Amino acid sequence: MDYRFSDAMSNISPSAIREILKYSSDPAVVPFSAGNPAPEAFPVSRIAEISARILSERPITALQYGATEGYQPLREHLCRYLKEKHRIGSEADSLIITTGAQQVMELAAKSLCNAGDVIITEDPSFIGSLNSFRSIGAKLVGVPIRPDGMDLEALEEALKANPNAKLIYTIPNFQNPTGVTMSWEKRQGVYALAKQYGVLIVEDNPYGDLRFAGEDIPAIKTLDTDGIVIYAGSFSKVLSPGMRVAYAVGPEPVIRKMTVAKQGEDVHTNMWAQMVTYEFMQEGFEQHLDSLRAIYRKKAELMMRLCDEHLVPTGITYLPIEGGLFLWATLPEGADMPRFCTEAVKEHKVAFVPGTAFLTDQSVPCRSFRLNFSTPTDEAMIRGMQILGKFAHEYLK
Amino acid sequence: MDYRFSDAMSNISPSAIREILKYSSDPAVVPFSAGNPAPEAFPVSRIAEISARILSERPITALQYGATEGYQPLREHLCRYLKEKHRIGSEADSLIITTGAQQVMELAAKSLCNAGDVIITEDPSFIGSLNSFRSIGAKLVGVPIRPDGMDLEALEEALKANPNAKLIYTIPNFQNPTGVTMSWEKRQGVYALAKQYGVLIVEDNPYGDLRFAGEDIPAIKTLDTDGIVIYAGSFSKVLSPGMRVAYAVGPEPVIRKMTVAKQGEDVHTNMWAQMVTYEFMQEGFEQHLDSLRAIYRKKAELMMRLCDEHLVPTGITYLPIEGGLFLWATLPEGADMPRFCTEAVKEHKVAFVPGTAFLTDQSVPCRSFRLNFSTPTDEAMIRGMQILGKFAHEYLK
Repeated sequence: MDYRFSDAMSNISPSAIREILKYSSDPAVVPFSAGNPAPEAFPVSRIAEISARILSERPITALQYGATEGYQPLREHLCRYLKEKHRIGSEADSLIITTGAQQVMELAAKSLCNAGDVIITEDPSFIGSLNSFRSIGAKLVGVPIRPDGMDLEALEEALKANPNAKLIYTIPNFQNPTGVTMSWEKRQGVYALAKQYGVLIVEDNPYGDLRFAGEDIPAIKTLDTDGIVIYAGSFSKVLSPGMRVAYAVGPEPVIRKMTVAKQGEDVHTNMWAQMVTYEFMQEGFEQHLDSLRAIYRKKAELMMRLCDEHLVPTGITYLPIEGGLFLWATLPEGADMPRFCTEAVKEHKVAFVPGTAFLTDQSVPCRSFRLNFSTPTDEAMIRGMQILGKFAHEYLK
Repeated sequence: MDYRFSDAMSNISPSAIREILKYSSDPAVVPFSAGNPAPEAFPVSRIAEISARILSERPITALQYGATEGYQPLREHLCRYLKEKHRIGSEADSLIITTGAQQVMELAAKSLCNAGDVIITEDPSFIGSLNSFRSIGAKLVGVPIRPDGMDLEALEEALKANPNAKLIYTIPNFQNPTGVTMSWEKRQGVYALAKQYGVLIVEDNPYGDLRFAGEDIPAIKTLDTDGIVIYAGSFSKVLSPGMRVAYAVGPEPVIRKMTVAKQGEDVHTNMWAQMVTYEFMQEGFEQHLDSLRAIYRKKAELMMRLCDEHLVPTGITYLPIEGGLFLWATLPEGADMPRFCTEAVKEHKVAFVPGTAFLTDQSVPCRSFRLNFSTPTDEAMIRGMQILGKFAHEYLK
């Protein structure tokens, strides 16, 4: 049988990241390639205790079908919480619980874009979201990212050149893969341009709670008096990715359409996970976030120190970060980055992700790579960066 | 803001079923409209016990990111189980765990169909799947269903008339909404036609384990020496729908493409639910299925008795069933079915679903409606059917 796939799905190439991740499953490999929360960041005993209570007191609610929009107590709590803590959400907005934040991107794109419509995105950006957009046949137009966020001139050019642009996709805090945070001025600029050109914004904020230095910058969604921002939040980095609980806050008609789309995908999100998340938020949630920030501050500072010590002397540069889980490093001019990544994992058992994977056009030359510091233990980080430094020294001389 | 949605999503009308379900949330309403497993069918204490063990012994596996394909022990166990018990799956097949079986339909359609491509389906069929297909822009072509399954002549005509048909969608066992089971001869016929016209089959089997009378008929997938059948199974009706665990077995290249599509939707299915499902299958699973069949046999037999007693004398007919969760009833010629459904729920607080909801073309006249007997208690069923009989008697005289 000669299988012919849809045009959209045929255009997604098996990603470089998966190749690298294959090697990473070898326990001898130092996994700077993943994006997993640190094992010590999981509030295991509280989840076990909450889960036992739910399965004893309300088992049928946890095991029966639920509403597509999500578990009502969690929806209501999140609406209040986001309004009070982050000034996110208005009377004109609605909230849907999703199976991970990836689903927000897919549902938004599916609801708003026909095949061939354009989605404008930071370039590089999170490969999962890019593939999500590709899977519904959207055309990606990349806008370069600077140390303070999207290049606004390039964004305006992209909007002018693509009258069929439907969405602007951004990760404003500790962007994946670059770790860059968008300045308040640029957030206002992106909002103004989106409004001017009649395009919606998808604001993806999985790492916002993981700021360990500097000051929080309000979400673009806080500016949204025009009903043009779909805001995505997630519990994957602050509670558990395996539970797959996230949410979107957006204009009611858009969330309603996304709900219809979700009904055709997974009907609703796992009920147990929604109930555990709700109960978990009722007590000590802020202290839990504090403890996560302490964990990742320590790991990030260690990682930056190791970069300074082992990579910078070889000519590799990196962008310093104030939060999130990733560092973006760049080889000096003339260096062959893909080969560097491949040799590092194959011959030295240190895995990280070639920057190419995150580009809207993967054929564009790229000398950067992404280092994750939440997955490996401190010991593995120290060992891995020593090895990487030695290899880089040889490779780049 | 004037929101413009994608063509595919604009074509999905807020379904009649949702209108009816709104009324059903009133606890005074008898819910023949839902499709929920009976509360007594949930193995609550075993799930609680397994869950506690998992969260104590392997919490990080349950809470961390998992593979898109699914939890490996569950995948391997299911492959063996399906092969040994149902002769499903070959060397050329692969298996993916999905977030409910709805996701199988969506992933298959997304992987294989461009907007405008045709999916041929039994008519009526499950509205969730039809909307799933509509959401990716597929055009639905309905083939009438007979008491022994799809009309094969109509199927061949549909295949001839639609060279861009990519999939044939069927629920061969206790079809939703009609309760019809496809004969072995017709299964062979559907397979032969699919092969002849180079079209894949999506075989959706959520109710297969709920046969309480008659003999099991092998799945179409057991015929699949050509790699043309994607088989979908689910734990929603035999363990818990709230957990959202299902799977697809299909040709390896197709499952691989569906895996890429799933990665762009929810990355992977809730890990806890996959682990609970795996552990649950290790002990007493067959006895559990036996106990479910006993529960639903009793409820189905009661429901058929109540139909004979209260509906048949008014001129309403129904198709007898040997399994599943639904009965398909039809008003006598000339009767206004939509008004019958609306008045029943609004004025008599008995909810069921107008057959129109399940049609590929909802503008076609229809006199049938779907009655579910797993959701209401026996007492509610008896009361509801008495009320419905009385109302039908008035309405149809």
